[in-house]
Amino acid sequence: MSDEIAFSDVRSLKRRLDAREITPSELVHVFADRIARFNALSHAFITVTGASAAVSAAKLTPEDLTRSSFAGIPYASKDLFDVEGVLTSAGSRVFHDQIATEDAFAIMQLRAAGALSMGKTNLHEFAYGATGENDVYGTCVNAYDPTRLAGGSSSGSAAAVAFGLVPAALGTDTGGSVRAPAALNGLVGLKPTIGRVPTSGVVPYCWTLDHVGLMTRTITDCADLLGIVAGYDPHDPASVNQPVDIYADHLGGGVRGLRVGIPENFYFERTDPEILGAVERVKSHLSKQGAKLIPVTFPDMEHSRTISLTVQMPEALSAHSAYLQERGELYGKDFRAGLALGQCLLAEHYVRAKRFIEQYRRQTNALFEDVDVILTPATPEIAQKLGAVNTIRDGVEEAVGNAITRFTTFFNMTGHPALTMPCGMHSEGLPVALQLVGRYFEESTILRAGHCLESNEDFAVPLPRIDGYVGTNVRNQVHHDG
Amino acid sequence: MSDEIAFSDVRSLKRRLDAREITPSELVHVFADRIARFNALSHAFITVTGASAAVSAAKLTPEDLTRSSFAGIPYASKDLFDVEGVLTSAGSRVFHDQIATEDAFAIMQLRAAGALSMGKTNLHEFAYGATGENDVYGTCVNAYDPTRLAGGSSSGSAAAVAFGLVPAALGTDTGGSVRAPAALNGLVGLKPTIGRVPTSGVVPYCWTLDHVGLMTRTITDCADLLGIVAGYDPHDPASVNQPVDIYADHLGGGVRGLRVGIPENFYFERTDPEILGAVERVKSHLSKQGAKLIPVTFPDMEHSRTISLTVQMPEALSAHSAYLQERGELYGKDFRAGLALGQCLLAEHYVRAKRFIEQYRRQTNALFEDVDVILTPATPEIAQKLGAVNTIRDGVEEAVGNAITRFTTFFNMTGHPALTMPCGMHSEGLPVALQLVGRYFEESTILRAGHCLESNEDFAVPLPRIDGYVGTNVRNQVHHDG
Repeated sequence: MSDEIAFSDVRSLKRRLDAREITPSELVHVFADRIARFNALSHAFITVTGASAAVSAAKLTPEDLTRSSFAGIPYASKDLFDVEGVLTSAGSRVFHDQIATEDAFAIMQLRAAGALSMGKTNLHEFAYGATGENDVYGTCVNAYDPTRLAGGSSSGSAAAVAFGLVPAALGTDTGGSVRAPAALNGLVGLKPTIGRVPTSGVVPYCWTLDHVGLMTRTITDCADLLGIVAGYDPHDPASVNQPVDIYADHLGGGVRGLRVGIPENFYFERTDPEILGAVERVKSHLSKQGAKLIPVTFPDMEHSRTISLTVQMPEALSAHSAYLQERGELYGKDFRAGLALGQCLLAEHYVRAKRFIEQYRRQTNALFEDVDVILTPATPEIAQKLGAVNTIRDGVEEAVGNAITRFTTFFNMTGHPALTMPCGMHSEGLPVALQLVGRYFEESTILRAGHCLESNEDFAVPLPRIDGYVGTNVRNQVHHDG
Repeated sequence: MSDEIAFSDVRSLKRRLDAREITPSELVHVFADRIARFNALSHAFITVTGASAAVSAAKLTPEDLTRSSFAGIPYASKDLFDVEGVLTSAGSRVFHDQIATEDAFAIMQLRAAGALSMGKTNLHEFAYGATGENDVYGTCVNAYDPTRLAGGSSSGSAAAVAFGLVPAALGTDTGGSVRAPAALNGLVGLKPTIGRVPTSGVVPYCWTLDHVGLMTRTITDCADLLGIVAGYDPHDPASVNQPVDIYADHLGGGVRGLRVGIPENFYFERTDPEILGAVERVKSHLSKQGAKLIPVTFPDMEHSRTISLTVQMPEALSAHSAYLQERGELYGKDFRAGLALGQCLLAEHYVRAKRFIEQYRRQTNALFEDVDVILTPATPEIAQKLGAVNTIRDGVEEAVGNAITRFTTFFNMTGHPALTMPCGMHSEGLPVALQLVGRYFEESTILRAGHCLESNEDFAVPLPRIDGYVGTNVRNQVHHDG
C-alpha cells in the first residue's frame, strides 16, 4: 500500500482519510519513511520536519479533517517560506542561522486548513538559477532519470512530489522556477496571477517578478491548493484584494467555445520536435473538443530575458545589501556573479526595464481581447544531464538554465496566471509538458482547460520507477565541480 | 464689474451664469482682457487660447450650462497637459514643436463638463524646480508682491488664478508643485490621492510621484473640480479604479469629533514664527469647534528629499532619453543638471529608494489609525524675493526651492491626499498657509476640515491689488541672470 499512497493525488488520499482507511498519522509515517529512503538520492529536502508533522497529525480531530481539502494531508515548501521555529536556509550558507519566528502567509493558510508540513525543500541558492544546482545542499535529480536535472529553482519541491515524498508542494516562480521543474518532472505547476497569493514571509528575490507557485500531481489538487493559499495580505504591497474563487468548482464544463491563442512567434521556435509534436496533438484534441484555435502574435521578445535580469539583480542586491556586508564570503558563485552584474546596472537601466515590463503587460493583455487562454510548450527541451552547461538546438547554443525557462520568464513580467502540465513522454523517457496562460485572476479558465486535457489518457505520463534506482550509486556530478 | 468677476470664485460665477446676468462668452472676454493686461507682468501663460474658448463659449446651449459646476467657466492648465491642437511646451525649448493630438484625461473631463480652456500656464522647465524660474518663458511673479516668486513648479497656474486671469487651474505636483505655489499665492491647492486623477496625457516627470493637482480660490470650487477630473483610466498604470465621490456634498458638518494629528517632529521645525503663529491659531479654532488634537510622530525624514530625488532623476532620464539624444542642447541648465545627477545613480540606489518609499507609506498609513487628518504648515517660509538662492532659518541655510517644498514632498512619496489653503497674512504682506493631509481616497475629510476653516473670517486673506502694479516697471530679475 505504501507505494500506492506515495504516488496518490491529494483527492485520493483525502477519500481514504474520509473513509477511515488511513489516519493522518499513518500518512505522515508513510511519507516520512519515503523521505528517509529517497532524500539522499533526490536531495529534495533541506530540512525534514516529520516529527512535528506527526505531532500535528495526532492532534487532528475528525472535525478538523473536515476543515479543507488538505486537512490531514502532508505537504512540503521550498526553503524560502518561513515556517515558525524552522530554519529558512534559502539554499544558502548565508542563511544558515535564520530560524523563522512566524509562518509565511501561505504556510499559515495551510496550517489553518489542517495540512501537515513535512519540511523545507531544496533550491538553487536564493532561487537564482533554473538548473537547481546547489553546492551546499546537493543538486536535485530527476525522478524519471537520476542522471538528469530536476530543474529549478524550486528543484526540491519538484523532486519531492515526483519522488513520491509528498503529494503537493509550494515553490516560488520568478522566471519559471515552479512551472519549469514541474514540467521536467511530469507534474502540474501553477504560477497564479501576480498578487493572487501574498509573498509575505517568503525570502524575497525580486519583488517585481516573485510569485508563490504550486506543484501537484493533478489539476484538481492544484485548484484545491490554490483555494487555500490565495488571499489578501495588506502588509504585502504586491498583494491584490480580489475575492478568492472556489477554483475546484469550475473544472468541469470542458473547452467548447474556448478561444485558444496559438503564438505565431517565439513559442514554437528552437524546440525539441517531440515536444512540438506533443503540443500539436494537444491542439488537435482541444479542437476536437470544440475549442477554437486562434493565432496570436506576441510583442518582440528579443530583449525580454535581459529586461527580466535588469529588474532582478538590483532588487536582489537591495534585498541582500545587509547580508553582503556582514557575511559576503558565504555566498555561492552563481548568486555572487548575479549580484556583481547588478552592481553595474544604472538606475536608468532599471527604470527603462520597468517601462518595458509595463509595455509587455499592456501588449499581452491586448492579446486576451481575442482569446481566453494561450497555449505554448512549457519548455523547449526535456530535462538535461547533470552538469550540462549548454544545449544546442537548430545550431544555436544556449545556457541550460536559459533554455529551461525560455517559455516561462515572460509571464512573470506580465503577471498573467500560467499553468504547466505534462502532455506525453519523450522517447528518451522524460515527460514533456505544455503551458496554458490566462487572463488576470482567471486561474479557473486555465485550470478548466487543463482538466479537460488531463481527463484524456493520451496525455497521461507514467509514474517514475523510483525503487529501481535504490542501491545504484548515483553520483551527483554537479556539486563536486565547484 | 470686471474686477469683481476676475476675483470671483467659480460658484459665484456659476450663479451669475445661471441667473443670466452674464454669458459664458462675456466671461471669456473678461478673462481674456485681463490676460492681455497682466500676462507680461505675471508671466502666467505660455499659450493663450482665448479665441478658441470664445468659440466654444458661443456654442454652449442653456442645457449645456447645466452639465456641471464648471459648465461655461474658464480655466487654465499647466503646460504639461495635452490640449488637442495646442502646443504642450513643458516650459522648455525642447518641446517647442510638440502639438498635442488629443486631450489629456483631465482636460477631456473638463471639456465634457463644459469648462472653457483659456490656455496653458508657465512652469519650471519640465516641472523640475520649485521656484518657477524659467529662462525661456520668464519667471512668474507673486500676485501679492511682484518682486517675489510665485513658487513652482506650477508657477503659472498659481499666478493665473492669483492675478485673476482665470478662476481655477490645473497643475501637477511631484513634490509640492501645486500645493506650494498655491500656498505662496493665497490659493487653495489640492494634491489628491495617488491614482485618483489619471495622469494620461500629462508630460511625465516621475511617474512614481507625479500627481495631477488643482488650484482654486475656495475649498468648494476645489471639491467641484475634483469631482470633474477624478476618474479611472485603464491606460494609466497608476490610475486606481475607485468610485468618484461627490466631494462638494460633504463640505458641511464641521469638525466636531475630528481627530487632528499634530506632528511632534519635522513639520514645526525651522519655520517662520509668523507661520507657526498662524497655524497655532488654526489649532485653537479647530479645538474650539470640537476637533481633537492628537500628537503624532513621523518616521525619520532625514533622507526623505534624497530618496525622492533618487526616484525622480532616473525616471526623468528614462522619459527624456530620446529627446536627450535628438535635441540635448535645447535643455535648460537646471533640468540638465538634474539629469546628469540621474546618470550617476545605480539601479541599486533607485531600488533602495523605492523600498524606503514603501516603508514611508506603511508608517504614515499607521499614523492614520489614530487620527483622521494631519495638520502642518504648508511651507516653512513665505514667498522669497526673485533671484534669491538660499533662505536662512535658525542658522541653517537651505536652497529656496528646497525650503518651498520641505513640508510637501513627503506626501508625494506616501501618496496621501494633501490640501494647502491660506490661513492668514504675514506682516510682510504675503499669505501664509497650512496643509491638511488625509487618508487614501478620503479627500472629502480634508476638504470638510478646510471648509470649516475657510468659513472663519480670521483666516481669510485679502485679494492682491494687481492694478497698483500696472505702469510700474517690474523687472523680472531672474531670467536675465542665467
